[in-house]
Amino acid sequence: MTEYPPFAVTADLVVLTVRTDELHVLLVRRGVAPYEGCWALPGGFVGIDEDLPDAAVRELTEETGLPEPAGHLEQLGTYGHPTRDPRARVVTVAWLALLPDLPAPVAGSDAAAADWVPVNRLDRARLAFDHGRILTDGLERARAKLEYTPLAAAFCPPEFTVAQLRAVYETVWDTTLDPRNFHRKVTGTPGFVESTGRSTEGERGRPAQLFRRGPATLLHPPMLRPSA
Amino acid sequence: MTEYPPFAVTADLVVLTVRTDELHVLLVRRGVAPYEGCWALPGGFVGIDEDLPDAAVRELTEETGLPEPAGHLEQLGTYGHPTRDPRARVVTVAWLALLPDLPAPVAGSDAAAADWVPVNRLDRARLAFDHGRILTDGLERARAKLEYTPLAAAFCPPEFTVAQLRAVYETVWDTTLDPRNFHRKVTGTPGFVESTGRSTEGERGRPAQLFRRGPATLLHPPMLRPSA
Repeated sequence: MTEYPPFAVTADLVVLTVRTDELHVLLVRRGVAPYEGCWALPGGFVGIDEDLPDAAVRELTEETGLPEPAGHLEQLGTYGHPTRDPRARVVTVAWLALLPDLPAPVAGSDAAAADWVPVNRLDRARLAFDHGRILTDGLERARAKLEYTPLAAAFCPPEFTVAQLRAVYETVWDTTLDPRNFHRKVTGTPGFVESTGRSTEGERGRPAQLFRRGPATLLHPPMLRPSA
Repeated sequence: MTEYPPFAVTADLVVLTVRTDELHVLLVRRGVAPYEGCWALPGGFVGIDEDLPDAAVRELTEETGLPEPAGHLEQLGTYGHPTRDPRARVVTVAWLALLPDLPAPVAGSDAAAADWVPVNRLDRARLAFDHGRILTDGLERARAKLEYTPLAAAFCPPEFTVAQLRAVYETVWDTTLDPRNFHRKVTGTPGFVESTGRSTEGERGRPAQLFRRGPATLLHPPMLRPSA
């Protein structure tokens, strides 16, 4: 035990949000070597006295500027190929966060810039380290989770219309859905959403009913992707 | 970067199999401190030049005595509470393996014994380190995966009867299922199983049709637990 191989451990974050009808990921532009000037997932070293989820929450609040994380945070997977970081043997525990739309992020100490970048206009192969692969895994996890869980609501404000929820599905899945069919499935799936009893003010057209997330943790039946 | 906190990284395995109609987990009895004499999940340190999946496969083949892993192996999650190992800061990447019934394992270098232990006759709270929690997470993952994937076949030999497959579901879920209803669901779910065109010899009663795992990766519709 006294001669176990030495590793560094980091927490990296795939932070997704929906803004202006596009799926966005939070990225930082690296201000230091290696990969200086490249976009990377936000993250940093786990402290020697810090539990892994605490490190993820700390990085998320530091990188987004929020006092505490809104939305949803879960462990995505751990990546540790021996050559993934040219400096040392670094194992990263990656986390997936799904957030409602937030203000623009503020760059941290070793990042030249931080910004929300549209996923579909990003060349994942040019991200630093193995972050392109981690982002790909995070996107697939998010897309799959929308089928079996009510997590789409994590991208919405606390009260939302069915049209807002449909826009999340359409954006994350990069598809279009039939509005009537979607409305019928959402309101007919037990525990998915609950009516607030209120409606939008209705800037144009008639007011729309406002919902909040329901108590279900799994959707029966699921909301399947058109391609699935 | 030159002063990042030093960690050790281990690979620990939740290895499940079905034998004599009971769900079993592969455990080792620790031959050294800490937790000397306690049951623990099999595992060990990741080598400085070793990728994480390679370490998991190496530990699995070492601990089961198989030349290569049969069945299914996936990353379960990473655990790293600062106090989980009294010796040093150790982060463990835990893996879940689902295997067909295997011969009795052979104890490795720092294990006094290795054995298949029935999950229902095990006091998880007495396992070494945080291995009780990791086992609980692995059991829940396995139980949930049987709903949405054809992974139950990973517990079966390459060719199996519907009754054998049902026994896996009943054992892992710790429940009983209606035989006719189960047969109808399994053979009616696209890609779940394929007929081999052969039948069992039929020691008692009439011969039973033999199946192999089908090409599906997700089950539509799912096989839901009676409790779910």
